Amino acid sequence: MEVKNTSILKNDPTKKKVEYKNFPMVPRVVFGNGSFDQLGTILMAKRKNSEAPFIFLVDDVFEGKELPYRIPTMFNDRIVFISADEEPKTNQVDVLVQKIRDDFSEIPSGIVGIGGGTIMDLAKAVSIMMNNEGSSYEYQGWDLVKKPSIYHVGIPTISGTGAEVSRTTVLLGPERKLGINSDYTTFDQVVLDPDLTKGVSKEQWFYTGMDCFIHCVESLNGTYLNAFSQSYGEKAYELCKEVFLDGLGETESRDKLMMASWHGGMSIAYSQVGVAHAMSYGLSYLLGVKHGIGNCLVFQYLEEFYPEGVALFKIMQEKHQIELPKGICANLSEDEFETMISVAMGMEPLWENALGKEWRKTITPAKLKSIYEKI
Amino acid sequence: MEVKNTSILKNDPTKKKVEYKNFPMVPRVVFGNGSFDQLGTILMAKRKNSEAPFIFLVDDVFEGKELPYRIPTMFNDRIVFISADEEPKTNQVDVLVQKIRDDFSEIPSGIVGIGGGTIMDLAKAVSIMMNNEGSSYEYQGWDLVKKPSIYHVGIPTISGTGAEVSRTTVLLGPERKLGINSDYTTFDQVVLDPDLTKGVSKEQWFYTGMDCFIHCVESLNGTYLNAFSQSYGEKAYELCKEVFLDGLGETESRDKLMMASWHGGMSIAYSQVGVAHAMSYGLSYLLGVKHGIGNCLVFQYLEEFYPEGVALFKIMQEKHQIELPKGICANLSEDEFETMISVAMGMEPLWENALGKEWRKTITPAKLKSIYEKI
Repeated sequence: MEVKNTSILKNDPTKKKVEYKNFPMVPRVVFGNGSFDQLGTILMAKRKNSEAPFIFLVDDVFEGKELPYRIPTMFNDRIVFISADEEPKTNQVDVLVQKIRDDFSEIPSGIVGIGGGTIMDLAKAVSIMMNNEGSSYEYQGWDLVKKPSIYHVGIPTISGTGAEVSRTTVLLGPERKLGINSDYTTFDQVVLDPDLTKGVSKEQWFYTGMDCFIHCVESLNGTYLNAFSQSYGEKAYELCKEVFLDGLGETESRDKLMMASWHGGMSIAYSQVGVAHAMSYGLSYLLGVKHGIGNCLVFQYLEEFYPEGVALFKIMQEKHQIELPKGICANLSEDEFETMISVAMGMEPLWENALGKEWRKTITPAKLKSIYEKI
Repeated sequence: MEVKNTSILKNDPTKKKVEYKNFPMVPRVVFGNGSFDQLGTILMAKRKNSEAPFIFLVDDVFEGKELPYRIPTMFNDRIVFISADEEPKTNQVDVLVQKIRDDFSEIPSGIVGIGGGTIMDLAKAVSIMMNNEGSSYEYQGWDLVKKPSIYHVGIPTISGTGAEVSRTTVLLGPERKLGINSDYTTFDQVVLDPDLTKGVSKEQWFYTGMDCFIHCVESLNGTYLNAFSQSYGEKAYELCKEVFLDGLGETESRDKLMMASWHGGMSIAYSQVGVAHAMSYGLSYLLGVKHGIGNCLVFQYLEEFYPEGVALFKIMQEKHQIELPKGICANLSEDEFETMISVAMGMEPLWENALGKEWRKTITPAKLKSIYEKI
């Protein structure tokens, strides 16, 4: 073994540099059926003191069911049931944060989200805002969060959004639907217990699963693709095909869709989504259409951009006898179309990923209107 | 939104519980060709003060090459070139730690490993031992590390071992070859820059890549398999097949093998390796055979356990015209065989993963000897 002090000639400053993301991964993950019951042990190590509670944000579909009784509350911990019928909002985050500040003398030990993408996103946003001033809408954008979030745990009960691994929390704000994208957004701990997805309705299962499938199509066909993102995206795409086409047993299907969501989330985290998400954001912003179904409503008409993906989507839709609602945009005014189109076209990185730097040559307001009119 | 205080009936204590691993993932990762040049920025944020150096442990194949000049040293940082000709040893770790303690007044800001599995493992072990007392051999085993390691970064320059994602550092100690398995072992940051693997010889590329392939075969055919591990293992297996069978271009091949290593490491992290690794540990312990080639030497004779994997291995070996050494065990004494067999049979979790709880019915000293004799 040789030990040397080397004097070093530094990097050539004239050399062109590419900047790659230094991506924050979820630093702790448990996977397995029944792993939810390890939550008590996991949280115990993170309790600051008996006055600093854990706040559990739980999808209200579980109210009165068995799951809340399995939540390992102690001391002054609190369970807050939240409806996921609407997309998560900045105002909702601000109210939750104020309520927690008012009700407790100490900053909580942590926030635990138990639910689908809406609850995941609320838990992330609340954990950020416990340590940051002002309203959550001020942090919508990229890397605007100044101070670390408090400890937060994500426990998905529907698979597909990828919100459990992403570094964003997508919120409907007063001016836009946009994520709080930051290194502090990522969960500190995720518990992947596929058994928790048992009670999901067929429609919800399909729409949320398709969110993952569409992520993968957008990521794999995007110009931002790289081998990192591709490997995750291909695996998630394969798993979606197994789950939605191969007729797996129920346990295997739940397990695999949870892993598809995980890998799909990693894939877009290191690349970007595309046309379906950009247009779906417009729908959500104007009409409050939920993200999963919004993606499906748009995606069915995107053969031009994603021919193979859309063809497979239709086969899956037929196999599971999913009827998508029609006429959503039938009675919209010109102003409303304009709003929707403007929100969608504002998602520049998504368009650039989908179609390259020259995307404005293909994507015009008239083009988007012609697609929205079909929905 | 409803806010409730719920009184909770706790988990039924009579219910049988399964314990799942709460796996520590690498919390930060950069991927991309040329991403090595972001190291300066990454480390800057972690510098404690000008007296607390970064120690760069670098494979000595890079001595005199370009790479050391690209290392972003500052202040009293030090580059230590280390030969990876031999497996990493507990004694080597202890000497390095002592040297760093003697030469610097402060605990380093961090340890950066730049090299293959040997260097990765040394960097992890040194970062642990900077904050823990005694000799590193005292920590070989599971969860024996008491205090957190110092900040450490892994930058692989050969793909396949998976050491960049694992929570172990496998060391040859006075009594055994065994990992320091702990939550503190995992790197705090990984930089995946496939360009760094450009100069690897064909043999080294093959042996280390096969380490990954064999991980996957062992994980996917093991009794510990679950959907988490399976999804990573399948992707890594597919990537290995692309790299070693499909004749990819050089850039794509390097990119994909780096991702195969990453996913393969994740797969075994959440399950376990098997027969090849158990027997290869015996070879390494007695003869100092390096891990990658040791796995290949054993694996070629494991048709009985992994028929599909071994068949594919032989096709890959032939395609790349790799000649494995012969007669390695030809002149061993009975005592030497016994030592090797005893080390191999001591790896109980590996055997249990491979063959189930009843593995001792299949695996006897005579059986292992008959395989070793072929090598």
